[in-house]
Amino acid sequence: MAIVVQKYGGSSVANEERIKIVAEKIRKRIEKGDKVVVVVSAMGKTTDKLINMAKNISSKPHPREMDMLLTTGEQISIALLSITLNEMDIPAKSFTAYQLNIITTKDHTKARIKDIDSTKILSELKKYPVIIVAGFQGITEEGDLTTLGRGGSDTSAVAIAAKLGINCEIFSDVSGIYTCDPKIFPDARKLSYITYDEMLELSSLGAKVLHSRAVEIAKKYDVPLYCASSFTEEEGTWVVNRLPEWLEEPVVTGVTIEENQMKITLYELPEENQVISNIFKKLADFNINVDMISMFSYGGKFHLSFTVLEDHKEIIENALRNVLPKTKISFDGIYDKLSIVGVGMKSSPGVAGKFFGILAESSIKPVLVTTSEIKISVLVPSDVSKKLLKKIAETFELGG
Amino acid sequence: MAIVVQKYGGSSVANEERIKIVAEKIRKRIEKGDKVVVVVSAMGKTTDKLINMAKNISSKPHPREMDMLLTTGEQISIALLSITLNEMDIPAKSFTAYQLNIITTKDHTKARIKDIDSTKILSELKKYPVIIVAGFQGITEEGDLTTLGRGGSDTSAVAIAAKLGINCEIFSDVSGIYTCDPKIFPDARKLSYITYDEMLELSSLGAKVLHSRAVEIAKKYDVPLYCASSFTEEEGTWVVNRLPEWLEEPVVTGVTIEENQMKITLYELPEENQVISNIFKKLADFNINVDMISMFSYGGKFHLSFTVLEDHKEIIENALRNVLPKTKISFDGIYDKLSIVGVGMKSSPGVAGKFFGILAESSIKPVLVTTSEIKISVLVPSDVSKKLLKKIAETFELGG
Repeated sequence: MAIVVQKYGGSSVANEERIKIVAEKIRKRIEKGDKVVVVVSAMGKTTDKLINMAKNISSKPHPREMDMLLTTGEQISIALLSITLNEMDIPAKSFTAYQLNIITTKDHTKARIKDIDSTKILSELKKYPVIIVAGFQGITEEGDLTTLGRGGSDTSAVAIAAKLGINCEIFSDVSGIYTCDPKIFPDARKLSYITYDEMLELSSLGAKVLHSRAVEIAKKYDVPLYCASSFTEEEGTWVVNRLPEWLEEPVVTGVTIEENQMKITLYELPEENQVISNIFKKLADFNINVDMISMFSYGGKFHLSFTVLEDHKEIIENALRNVLPKTKISFDGIYDKLSIVGVGMKSSPGVAGKFFGILAESSIKPVLVTTSEIKISVLVPSDVSKKLLKKIAETFELGG
Repeated sequence: MAIVVQKYGGSSVANEERIKIVAEKIRKRIEKGDKVVVVVSAMGKTTDKLINMAKNISSKPHPREMDMLLTTGEQISIALLSITLNEMDIPAKSFTAYQLNIITTKDHTKARIKDIDSTKILSELKKYPVIIVAGFQGITEEGDLTTLGRGGSDTSAVAIAAKLGINCEIFSDVSGIYTCDPKIFPDARKLSYITYDEMLELSSLGAKVLHSRAVEIAKKYDVPLYCASSFTEEEGTWVVNRLPEWLEEPVVTGVTIEENQMKITLYELPEENQVISNIFKKLADFNINVDMISMFSYGGKFHLSFTVLEDHKEIIENALRNVLPKTKISFDGIYDKLSIVGVGMKSSPGVAGKFFGILAESSIKPVLVTTSEIKISVLVPSDVSKKLLKKIAETFELGG
């Protein structure tokens, strides 16, 4: 007998019929003799609906009360899944965060898990083949309800698996991690294995499958993750620390496009210590995530280019004007970010040359470039990015 | 400074606008210097929607999991009301049953309150002018969530008031208790005071205002109840143990009609000890509530007539056939039950005579009669009941 954590996302429990499909999947697993800790999200768009209710009342709802509101979504899911399993004569019992003592920090709406009462989980698993845990939620030491922020149910599942030292299976409407988006490159190959680091870099490919915070926890505690479809029996993708020995390390594991990247340039900034940090701190205050960053110095001054998601132009302008009242700010347009990722890059020279060769062949000059150990990203015009992705996928053999 | 419990029903918190009206009402109260423990029900039809979701999955949903599901309704309400109050700069904090240790029996979906942690309520009231409590719910000593059955939020409110030894105000879309249904007798008078006993007997008049279980608890612990409208400033009705000294006791306090009463007669039953109790026990097994009961004996046998709500004919026939395979069972038709209620009846002879006089004048012969210390009920044809009610209301001076 093994114990496994299975997490089912919101679209997998969006209605009573889908909940039955999930219950059947759980039944198959326990018929193999395993015990299952199921973590579920709120049904479909429930969390969004609850947020809208609160926003109708207040533009800044009280965070503690917001969590009181939002935690009901997952509680509905666990109850309905448990009713379904019990109806199928599978003894199951559902638990909220407070019933399992999932202790978090007090940062309402974005709390972090501090501890989980594994003795309670293990003792309930002696009595029930299935226990169902509300994802996304926790309690503070004072007994207040908290939520873990977006992607929080993934985090709950991985944290429980980490605490119990077992595998974590993440089921969603996506059947695994692909080398690239099959909508753009239909021949895209599903990966059998991917490393945590690659998964984190491939956030746009993985976002629909697994939240990056959960990947970080899995990496930290070395929890093997398995991502697969809730609705089919297809093989999924393992996310692990290191690829199995027998697997030849591919140079490039995947290629992604992220759209709607707005490029902004600040001209002739003084080369003082605090300038850059002041700029990015101020943007962070306004909740603006800066992605790619590039700078160019000359004669005691420098230019700074960076990208953000396009839908915050006004907020960004306000934020920047706040710290740089007189600087020339240029909004340079909307681009796509094209990235290749692969752990094999580290040990395989020539990847960058090959990559930029493809751009050159297509007469594309990237407007921004950033690199990491296992990733190269370029900002390119949106109308050519898909054609480029196909060429890259073919060149680096990412097809099926 | 006084502390008061205020309970707002589902229709009073049915949407964000109504919740704001409720919040304004609370604000007015705390501006007087009082502290308020607010108990709320689930919004509008939320509980029914949740029940339907469960019934789509199972005809007999697991009771523990049903409670896990249903308690989310009130949790949504308390969060939204608290968000609203905080948005209005009124410090408020919401609490689920487990956060206040509202301990109940283990009878899921129909649990009874065993104890409430009043120290927690009182210590929170030192910090907040308003605390908001999820009605209808509790937890077992083992930490499982329970619900108190229909009308449970009234019960929660009265139980908290009883524990704290304070008044309980019940707000709904009905502005108080009337001598009779204003839809039938537009001149009906709103009562300033009514006794617990009358309120219990007038269940059909009071049902929309206050659940009878809550009245029973209020009576037991002598909690003064005040029933009024959530939406107006109109004076409501006090429900108390004894009318104020200065108030002349009316002979008849109210008159009601309950519709859809099915009369059933069982013929020639043997006069054995267990016959009647077996019949009613069996009906109870099938969850059939018997209301009026009348019997007629002759020569070692007896006939038994009783009424039930009409929508259970087949179930009743099955139940009765189970204990009385050969007895003649007659379904005698659907009637209205007309009742007069008044604590003054006890000390005022001649009420029955006057009451039956009105029936006689209208040439109505009741098909069933039952009486208690403070109530007389008759079963009459549905097409004459409203005309009779008006005559009775005029005769006993129940007008405004």
